[in-house]
Amino acid sequence: MTAIDEPDTRDLAFFDASRSADVVNARMGADISPRFREIMTILVEHLHAAVKEARLTSEEWMAGIEFLTRTGQMCSDWRQEFILLSDVLGVSMLVDALNHDRPAGSTENTVLGPFYVPGAPHFENGTNICLDGKGEPLIVRGRVTDNDGKPVAGATLDVWSTNDDGFYDVQQRDLQPENNLRGVFTTDHDGRYWFRTVKPRFYPIPDDGTVGKMLAALGRHPNRAAHLHFIVAAPGFDTVVTHIFTPDCRYLGEDAVFGVKTSLIADFQHVDDLAQAEAAGVANPFWTVEWNFVLASKDEVERKRAEKTS
Amino acid sequence: MTAIDEPDTRDLAFFDASRSADVVNARMGADISPRFREIMTILVEHLHAAVKEARLTSEEWMAGIEFLTRTGQMCSDWRQEFILLSDVLGVSMLVDALNHDRPAGSTENTVLGPFYVPGAPHFENGTNICLDGKGEPLIVRGRVTDNDGKPVAGATLDVWSTNDDGFYDVQQRDLQPENNLRGVFTTDHDGRYWFRTVKPRFYPIPDDGTVGKMLAALGRHPNRAAHLHFIVAAPGFDTVVTHIFTPDCRYLGEDAVFGVKTSLIADFQHVDDLAQAEAAGVANPFWTVEWNFVLASKDEVERKRAEKTS
Ligand SMILES: [Cu+2]
Ligand SMILES: [Fe+3]
Ligand SMILES: [Fe+3]
Repeated sequence: MTAIDEPDTRDLAFFDASRSADVVNARMGADISPRFREIMTILVEHLHAAVKEARLTSEEWMAGIEFLTRTGQMCSDWRQEFILLSDVLGVSMLVDALNHDRPAGSTENTVLGPFYVPGAPHFENGTNICLDGKGEPLIVRGRVTDNDGKPVAGATLDVWSTNDDGFYDVQQRDLQPENNLRGVFTTDHDGRYWFRTVKPRFYPIPDDGTVGKMLAALGRHPNRAAHLHFIVAAPGFDTVVTHIFTPDCRYLGEDAVFGVKTSLIADFQHVDDLAQAEAAGVANPFWTVEWNFVLASKDEVERKRAEKTS
Repeated sequence: MTAIDEPDTRDLAFFDASRSADVVNARMGADISPRFREIMTILVEHLHAAVKEARLTSEEWMAGIEFLTRTGQMCSDWRQEFILLSDVLGVSMLVDALNHDRPAGSTENTVLGPFYVPGAPHFENGTNICLDGKGEPLIVRGRVTDNDGKPVAGATLDVWSTNDDGFYDVQQRDLQPENNLRGVFTTDHDGRYWFRTVKPRFYPIPDDGTVGKMLAALGRHPNRAAHLHFIVAAPGFDTVVTHIFTPDCRYLGEDAVFGVKTSLIADFQHVDDLAQAEAAGVANPFWTVEWNFVLASKDEVERKRAEKTS
């Protein structure tokens, strides 16, 4: 009110439906985090715009309040229903895309998912991580390179997937061997890795909570397209958190969390050849997939991020 | 895929950051509630637009997930932190405005607030509802009319306010008399009501939870401008849920929940006159406020709502 160049915000003191977001945002204090101010301004603007565009009724508003409340109350040490909500609304994938914008040709990220367990055992290349004997054998092999095609030796590949019943080991601690279908592999001097596992299958995300009810009301199923999880890391490179998807899964085009990117759909080959199976140490018939990871350097990714935000 | 006029949505099967909201919304089933489809389409569009505009980092996204989770977990039978969040973000006022658009001249609504208790005792006009003797005496009087100025006889006025310490009776069940500063009055044949109470004062909304932390980070205080609550109801009329505000409260222009509308600021008169005080049955000095409520018919409000949504 004292400085001449200060805008007069007195007229924003009282509620006015026609510019309600401005009234709310004008209330922020002067000495707050500029970034928090920016985020809250944007959120309030879009939230008010959505409420107005939908002409939300009082009953619908109350249903929303109750949904958010129950979603929070479903969360526990082993269940994060709000992350699940973010996943099925495509927000998790969007945030990831905004934060891992890599040079063309680099392997893309997808969702981490709730079943990653840090500290899985390290194995020699070639090890079979399927410990329960269920499912169709699969041999996974490939290379890790940088953007110039140069091999990245000593890169770690943290891999995990469900068993053939569609559950992760941590979902069935009493039924599955510990670390079933989980392990860390390391690339050799030529950037190569290989291991044995089983062909992944689709499985439902937890759908007995508020998110499951919402999916049902949206006419959506809770299934994730069949995939293998990978975290590929090497010093100096942007860590890749990703999947590879089987091309033949019925849910490929309708993954419940929008995790499928076309660049992540692999070519799984079916092999029916007793000699090859014996040589590879798997039962016949079996599957193979060759998959190469291309890592972007941390510097490149930082440079891209700085360009976008400036 | 069979009908010729059906849009081909196959290209929306896979995640694409540049049209992420469309990918999510294309996933909805055919046989769902049209209204739910409409609301979710709008919410997803604005949510994705906000995340993109803010270029939310993974850490900020996680902070948001944790905020929502803790907000849900603060809710209990006697505490609704998500409604509080809606209140301080101006969403509650906005939803009310969208749903109670009345003809010009009608008394406007404001927030109900969490301290309304149905079933307060009915009193004769003139009754003093201040049972703890604290605060400056106030006489409230006025008329309830329709939009043509005709008195509404038999209208009920459900009133409640904090005591002079800034707490509602239900917040201090051990300290305050039951139904302190609460009661229901009924208009006479001429639409008149009057009662005795005390001048209201500002008070903070509950600020020991996630919403309080957010307000602090926004540089905002938790105080509500001093007000008296009213619910005015009569058969055939749109029920008015509102306040009247004192003009001299220091928080009038910065109510924490944006409940102040200029049309709800009343003229409180200070009276220092022993004879008048004795005649009115209050201590000297005291305050008076005259306030008339103008009710819109249910039909009028329904007509306006139908116009807006069609
Ligand atoms: Cu928007
Ligand atoms: Fe998974
Ligand atoms: Fe109040």
